Parts: sequence; C-alpha cells; structure tokens
Amino acid sequence: MRATQFLIATEKETPADAVVISHKLMLRSGMIRKLAAGLYTWMPLGLRTLRKIENIVREEMDRAGAQEILMPTVQPAELWEESGRWYQYGGELMRLKDRHNREFCYGPTAEEVVTDIARNNLSSYKQLPMNLYQVQTKFRDETRPRFGVMRAREFTMKDGYSFHANEESLQETYERMHEAYSRIFNRLGLDFRPVLADTGSIGGASSHEFHVLAESGEDDIAFSDSSDYAANVELAEALAPAGERPAASKELEKVSTPDVTSIEDVAALLNVATSDVLKAIVVRGTSEAEDAEEGEAGEPVVLFLRGDHQLNEIKAEKLPGVLSPLQFASADEVQKIGGVAGFTGPRGLSARVYVDRSAAHMADFVCGANETDAHFTGANWGRDVEEGTIADLRNVVAGDPSPCGKGTLDIKRGIEVGHIFQLGTKYSEALKATVLDENGKDRVMMMGCYGIGVSRVVAAAIEQNNDDNGIIWPDAIAPFHVGIVPMNMHKSEAVKEAAEKLYNELTEAGFEVYMDDRDKKTSPGVKFADMELMGIPHRVVISDRGLEAGALEYKHRSAEEKEEIAADNVLNVLKERIKLG
Amino acid sequence: MRATQFLIATEKETPADAVVISHKLMLRSGMIRKLAAGLYTWMPLGLRTLRKIENIVREEMDRAGAQEILMPTVQPAELWEESGRWYQYGGELMRLKDRHNREFCYGPTAEEVVTDIARNNLSSYKQLPMNLYQVQTKFRDETRPRFGVMRAREFTMKDGYSFHANEESLQETYERMHEAYSRIFNRLGLDFRPVLADTGSIGGASSHEFHVLAESGEDDIAFSDSSDYAANVELAEALAPAGERPAASKELEKVSTPDVTSIEDVAALLNVATSDVLKAIVVRGTSEAEDAEEGEAGEPVVLFLRGDHQLNEIKAEKLPGVLSPLQFASADEVQKIGGVAGFTGPRGLSARVYVDRSAAHMADFVCGANETDAHFTGANWGRDVEEGTIADLRNVVAGDPSPCGKGTLDIKRGIEVGHIFQLGTKYSEALKATVLDENGKDRVMMMGCYGIGVSRVVAAAIEQNNDDNGIIWPDAIAPFHVGIVPMNMHKSEAVKEAAEKLYNELTEAGFEVYMDDRDKKTSPGVKFADMELMGIPHRVVISDRGLEAGALEYKHRSAEEKEEIAADNVLNVLKERIKLG
Repeated sequence: MRATQFLIATEKETPADAVVISHKLMLRSGMIRKLAAGLYTWMPLGLRTLRKIENIVREEMDRAGAQEILMPTVQPAELWEESGRWYQYGGELMRLKDRHNREFCYGPTAEEVVTDIARNNLSSYKQLPMNLYQVQTKFRDETRPRFGVMRAREFTMKDGYSFHANEESLQETYERMHEAYSRIFNRLGLDFRPVLADTGSIGGASSHEFHVLAESGEDDIAFSDSSDYAANVELAEALAPAGERPAASKELEKVSTPDVTSIEDVAALLNVATSDVLKAIVVRGTSEAEDAEEGEAGEPVVLFLRGDHQLNEIKAEKLPGVLSPLQFASADEVQKIGGVAGFTGPRGLSARVYVDRSAAHMADFVCGANETDAHFTGANWGRDVEEGTIADLRNVVAGDPSPCGKGTLDIKRGIEVGHIFQLGTKYSEALKATVLDENGKDRVMMMGCYGIGVSRVVAAAIEQNNDDNGIIWPDAIAPFHVGIVPMNMHKSEAVKEAAEKLYNELTEAGFEVYMDDRDKKTSPGVKFADMELMGIPHRVVISDRGLEAGALEYKHRSAEEKEEIAADNVLNVLKERIKLG
Repeated sequence: MRATQFLIATEKETPADAVVISHKLMLRSGMIRKLAAGLYTWMPLGLRTLRKIENIVREEMDRAGAQEILMPTVQPAELWEESGRWYQYGGELMRLKDRHNREFCYGPTAEEVVTDIARNNLSSYKQLPMNLYQVQTKFRDETRPRFGVMRAREFTMKDGYSFHANEESLQETYERMHEAYSRIFNRLGLDFRPVLADTGSIGGASSHEFHVLAESGEDDIAFSDSSDYAANVELAEALAPAGERPAASKELEKVSTPDVTSIEDVAALLNVATSDVLKAIVVRGTSEAEDAEEGEAGEPVVLFLRGDHQLNEIKAEKLPGVLSPLQFASADEVQKIGGVAGFTGPRGLSARVYVDRSAAHMADFVCGANETDAHFTGANWGRDVEEGTIADLRNVVAGDPSPCGKGTLDIKRGIEVGHIFQLGTKYSEALKATVLDENGKDRVMMMGCYGIGVSRVVAAAIEQNNDDNGIIWPDAIAPFHVGIVPMNMHKSEAVKEAAEKLYNELTEAGFEVYMDDRDKKTSPGVKFADMELMGIPHRVVISDRGLEAGALEYKHRSAEEKEEIAADNVLNVLKERIKLG
C-alpha cells in the first residue's frame, strides 16, 4: 500500500474522552472513528488488524474440528422466552420490535439460536460431538460504554458452541478448545494466561478465562511462580497459613478507641500492624422462614478477616446461609446481633460467624469490643472470643502459597479476551434439545461454549504493546509488516528505483508493505512519527547517502538503535525477522 | 472435508413455504436454515459459498483502489435526520431505542454514516478521490420477506461509496467500478448483464444495475442482439417505427360493441389484430391550482397505446402534467373529460392527450367512440380523431429495434445483484460534507455509491445453475470443488488407500475436497444424491473394479455421461478442468 492511496487519519492530539492507552492510540493512529457512544467505525488501518485476528481465530477453530456458521444478529424473543433469559437479562439486551410488532433482540450472544439449530438438525448421538462457531457482530447496550472498542456496545465476537452425548465428550472438546485458544493467543503474539474462572450461577464443571496481561487490565490474575496454575483472584483459593496457630502470650484488655473505626486508624492508634487487627464484615443472611421468598434477607452473618486482607465477595456469597448477591447489613441490623458498627468483634455475638483461614491463625490480636469507642487488645480465639466456622473468605495476595501446592503466587492485571465454559444442560434442557441415544431414548445434549472478543483483542494487544510514540504490533497482527520511507523520492531517481524494487520484492514475498510516498510537503519526521504511531514493526529507510554506501537503514519498532543492512541483503534479513504467526 | 466431520443437513422433502428454486435447493441441500421470517442461519455448507463470493468481491474492490472499512450496523437517528431520510424512509427502516431512549436504526444502507466519516476525515481536494466500501450485515424490515435469502430481512451486502472533487472524477471512478463489477460477476462464473437503470427521484447522471440472467428473475432486461446495449425494460427507449405512417384507406364507421371493453375482446369481435386497436389509459394529472399541494390531483390525462403494447409507468410518470406516482382515473373522472370507461377514444376529448410513438403510426385503426357499447373502425389520426403529443409511453418488446441503433432487442428476465449509482451531492450537501478546493474554498463533494447483494448472489447463482437433482455450482463459488465417493471404503483397503491419497493430493493442490466417508449404512445412491443436491461440480468415484483397471470414474455435475480416467492422471485432469476464478 502506498501512503498516497491510503486513508491516513493520524492525529497529533489525543481526543479528550479517551482514557486508556489503547483507545487513545486507536483514535490517534486512525484505526477507528467514533460514530456514537460505544459505536465505532473500523477505518482501513484498524480493519486490517481486526481481520488478521479473525482469520487466525478461524484457522485454529477449523483445525480443532469446529465448523463455521453465521447466525442472524436479530433473534426472536420466543427463543429467549424458552430459555428464560428474556426476563432475566437486564438493560444490556437491546430489544426491538418489527413492523408487525413482534419482539426481537440484537443478539449479545447466541446460546438460544444455536441450541435451536441443534435441536432441529441433530437427531442421533452418532452426529455428536458437534462444534459450531461464528464470527459475528454482537450488541450489548452498556449503561456506560467506555475505553473505545474495549467496552463498546457493538463489537465483533467469535462465539462457539459444542454439543455432546455425555460429560466425557464435553470434557474432551473443552480441552481441545483450551488448546486451540492457547494456540490462537500464541499465534497472535500476545503474553496471555488461561486462568480458572468462576462458573457463576450456571454451575458447570469448569470455566477458564484467557487474559492478555497488561497493567491497565480490569482483572487481577493470581498465578504460581513455579507451575501453570493461574486463576482469577475472584476464584483463587487462599490456603490456611502453614503450621500451628501461635500460642497466646498477652492478656485481654479493653482499650478506648474513640471515633476510631477503620482498621488503619485502629492499628495506628494502638501501634500495631494492620495484620494484627481483626476485621469484621456483617452481611445479610438468607431467611429461614418457611414462607420466605427467594432473595429475602434473614439474620445477619458476621465474617472475620485479618485487617490487611480483602473480602472476596464471590467466595462469601457461596457460604451456607449468606444471601447472594452479597448485601451488607445496616447499623441497626448489626446492633440486633450484639455488634456495634465500627466496633464489632467476635466476643458475645448472637449470629452465625465465619472466620477466614488466615484470621483463624491470629493470636494476641486487636478486635472490636462490641461497645462504642472500644476495642480489645491481646484477644485470642477460644480463650477470649468464640471461634466460628473457618472458611476461605479473602482474596489471595502476592506471596501467598499457590493453591496448586507449588511455588508462591504473583498477581498481575489482565484483560479478559476469551472465555471457555462447560454449560452442561442449562440451555439444551430449557429448549428440549435432545438426541436419541444408543438405546433409542431421548437424551438432553450437554453443551460447552467458547468466546473470543475479537475486537477487544485489538485493544488488549495495544495495551500490552505500546510506548510513548505509539503502537508496537506483533508481526502476526500488524496492519503492515514493513514500512518503507524513501528519502527525497521525488528528487532522487536512485531512491525511487530502490524503493519501488524493495516494495515489489517484499510484496511478492507475501509481506504487506506500507510505502510512504507522500511528497516533500510531508517531512520525513512526520512520516517516521506516523509509522511509529501506526505500530508498523519493521522500518526501512532508503536514502541517496545509504545507497551510495550500498546500505539501507533498518529499525525494528521496539529497538533503540537503527542498523545498516547491505541493500542486497534486506529481503533476506526481513524474511528471517518477520514472524507471520 | 470428510462427510463424517461435516454437518450434513440435506433433506429429501421440499419445505412447504419455499416457492423459488434457489430457496428450495438452499434449504434441501442444508445451506441455510430459517430462524424466523426473513432471518436465516448460514450453515457450514452455505457459508462456504457466501465467503467465496465475499472474497472475490473484496479482491476486485481492492484491485480497483477501494479501501475496506467496517461501519456499525446500528446508526444514530441524528444522521438520518440530517439527510431527511429518517422521515422519508418507510416501515422498512428498523428503528430502535437504546436504554437511554436515544433513537437509532439498524442500517439498511450507509450513505449517512459514510458521508459523516468523509466530512470528518477529508479536508482537502488533494485527498480525493476516496473510495470506501464494507461487507456488512444489513437489515430491511420487509413487509413480506420471501424467496429465502433472495428477499430476506437480514442480509449481507457490499456497499461502497466514493467521494470526488468534481464530476469528471466521479465519472472516472464510476467507470472503474463498472469494470470491477463486470470482473466480479465474470469471476463468479455467472451469466450477467450490466443494464442501464432508472435513476429514480435522486436524478444523477447515470445508474447501472447488474443482473444475473435467470428465468425466475423479477426484472425484464432488454438487450441488443448486436451491441453491448442492455437496459431494464423500465428504462429502455421504444423508438418510433421506421418510415412514414401508412395512408388512410378505410372510412370511419361506428360499430356496436355491447359490453365489449377489453382490447382482446374488441379485436376478436371485429376480427382484427390487437395491434389494430387503440388502447386508452386515463390517469390523473397534476393540479394546476396555485394553492395546490404536492401530489394533489388535477384534470385527467389520456394516454393512447397500440393495443398489443404495455404502458411503461415510469415513462408515463415523467410526462409533463402527469401525477407521480401514477394514479388511474375513476370512471367519473373519465366521464368528465368526455370519455366512457371501456369505450374511450381520441375523438372529441377535452383533456391533455399523449400518444405513444407506435400508436401514432397506426392507420385505419379501431378505437373507442366515447359512447357506451360503441367503437369506431377505420379511424385515422388527423382525419377522424385529434392528434395528441407524441411520446414514448410503452415497454419495449422483443423484436423492437435497439435504441442504440444497432440490431434488435431481445428480452430476458434478470435478478438484480448489483447497482452502481452516481449520487451527485444529495447526501454530501445535506450533511455539509465539503473539502477545500484549489482556491481554498469549501466545495461540496460529489458522491457515487456501489452495492452488491452478496447473500442474494448466492440465490441468483442457483437460479441460473440448477437441474432436477439440485445445484450446479460454478467452480469459483462451489462449497467444495471435488467430491470423492469411495465405494465400499470400509471393506476395501485398496479403495480406502486410493481415496485418502487422492484426497490429500487434491487438498495439497489447493482444491477443496468433500469425501463421503460415511459407512455402509449410507448407500452409494444417497451419497451421489447428496453431492448432486449440494452442487459439487467435479465428482470422482473410486471402486475396486475401477482400480483393478487402473481407472477412476469422473463426472462433471452438468455432464450427461461419466468418464473413465486413468488413476494416475486424475490430478492433472482436475487441475485442468477446475477454474478457480
């Protein structure tokens, strides 16, 4: 591609409403343009990368035995009523009515449609397993779309769904998809981790998210420094501290802590570490009344953690007797069970009590005295305060032992770009998607689902690969592999000739080349800046001075220094260095 | 692809609601499945063909210098208000509201969005011409979706838009697009015609439709047997008959024709040809009152045609004084101007009168006498009845002289699959899409637009290429190029080995192969039938008997006879015969 034939839409200024770096760079480099909140046009530069990602995803899905289909974006309400999601799905579901007043939605996902296809086209267990996928536009009517294509309303997703006669078959395809996803993100040239994820309300045996590691990620990923173990912090198990609980060595003492309610303030006032202070969190429990409705609150439940630890709400929600989703108790509710908001401790409470594994390991600790403006020091479980049920209540932190038994945990931030999930029979049962089994009996199919946020991968790749000058594309998804800057092309016949020759040679070798042939009104500085902003990984500068010495100037986008390469060797060097994935 | 790993969804029975052959065959072969009215899922078989068409379209658009982008399917109402189409577009525009109650539509086309992109990203005439396109899902909320993907509500369209500093540049790109479209449909292997089309209410200098010729087409295409001339019958000019009008040779005579009002009945009663009877059509005229509203009807206008000719409503609507869209006058209105419904003739009418060129050439004709149950015979223009304004009012018919001056016209039916259009400044003016010209002054850009109904091409190709057994794909868009049927594969090691060898050789040679490896429960007859239904163009049968003789059986899908081909020569023969486009 020649610059003079390309819609260059680079911008010097960073648009005001862009917060994250990928959003800024995608706008500045001219990859995308905003049409309305959460709606973006992919410009020629951006679309090149989007399509490359799509194609790698397709190749690996096909290689893993999945078959591509294309389902309508507009889905009839009837199917969503069958699954129950028409009523459960909130405002993110874009509902629409056609001219005959029939209800539809713009699909945010396609479990219902694909299950309908399966029930209509699969009749025997012999046709299973069947693994179908599509790369299609999706819509989620986000309340607050943000971060550009990272959290857009309209986006491109690869969604895949598999159908099985039994659990083992589902497990097998799930593992094949796990491998395919790893191959995909490896080929894309990204630093990623497959991490254990929460299976949420669906249950199901297993779920993994694929995260691209980047400081700007929204998720915390815990992973072992000595094994493959990686899990979303939401899910990573916090093991009990090793060894016995230290013995009590201090006496219980009530101390005055007027108006001091936060862990940090209590620790500062009493001159102890926050890890020596017991943190109390009072949440609503489930009602035990016989005529209680689902979600109705009953007696409060008290959760104790070490002062320096954070409550893991997902773990807490799963505890017996705790209301899900988690709700915090009011000061009045705290008082009813004998606590005092800001000064609640384990002594003399009339409530169900859970103690985090690490908190249960504390000795001689500080805790609330269940009196206004008072705490205890030198408290010890059993001797001074009642012990509760020990449970895993907290988020893991860096340095925790890995729950896999090997090494210690490190924590990095990640951007979720893929998710694989064993759905079980949630949709196939609701839609009565059955096949005849070996004995001629109806059997509800098992399902798995497998998503990749294709347009989100573009943003995640940029979050992981950028510097002050712009994007640094991995070769496999670069819009162009090589950028050529011919200096003074319009004056020097020699430069022009050498540039055209290299352009043609590289193109014939299968590389995508961007040659900045703009005239002298565009300075070399602007050409270099545009190429760096656009993230073209390999750059060749052709000048009269270089040609006289038989050399071209080469620089990789991420290298500090330029190199001189013999003109007749450039093609070979580039062939060696460009990794097409 | 092996049949055992492919979602085969062939059906013996033709679904009840399918009328046209492409719809029937797409359902029966398992290319598509219906989700709801006008909404279809592309199954693995169908998607293969759809993608091939998309890719050929992309390659030729890129080659012609167009740049691909991807615009959102959901478009904000504000832009459609700027162009005025938010109010003009009828019920086909799928309108929607987001959670903040803002209005959007699911784009049926993208003139507004692309013009918005142009005005925001193009500032100088030096950036022009700019030619942008996308292959994207569109939605038109058809009142009565029908014929499968031929007239679906959700469909895949390639829509392209060009921007220009002046008319000449638009003309140049328009011609390049005309060539690109011809290359595309040639590469797709289709028998097509680019035809002159009506520019409708937009005006504009030029417009061509690209039609795939097929008996089931909805449009009549007139084309010269001796030149490139082709036009939609809507538009094709009917020339005046050659030579002078014959002289009058009969006397005017009033004859009784009780209750006989149709041309056919009059001709039969009076024993003349329908071409000797004058046909009167009374339509509403425009109001000439000063305070008349747009579309208000005034005095009727009478149109006379030769009895065997059909009125061309598009031509009639464009006549001075005729209301557009065309409305027929009531019997009362006919009476007011001196006519009698069923017996109206040119003698003594008090109305504006247009006479078709061919009707004006008639002599000694039959016409209504403006009296109930009476006609004249032996009527002649000027002598017996007043002459009107001569105009081109009729559809051309086969055998008419071509308006290009060369040869005579033939008429075939066509399916519109592409349309190129010189838009002029309709959208750029409404949206104020300007660039600075050579003198630093704002200039409204000229625009062209270029559409291909990608999913419709699939159906049109089938309408043109089928027989009683199913589809006959042109090689370039066949889902698979070669089908292999190994006979008794599960018994014969030799057959299995030969089949696998051929499968691998063909795949390595770049062909897409479908091998029917289903076990003996699927008879060879079913395998042959499925392959014919699916339209795989080249079929190779491998059997023990053939192998013993060193031969394989080859048959082209459209051939009557099978051929024996030496086993070691099959690859070469197929390489010669398969045209990848």
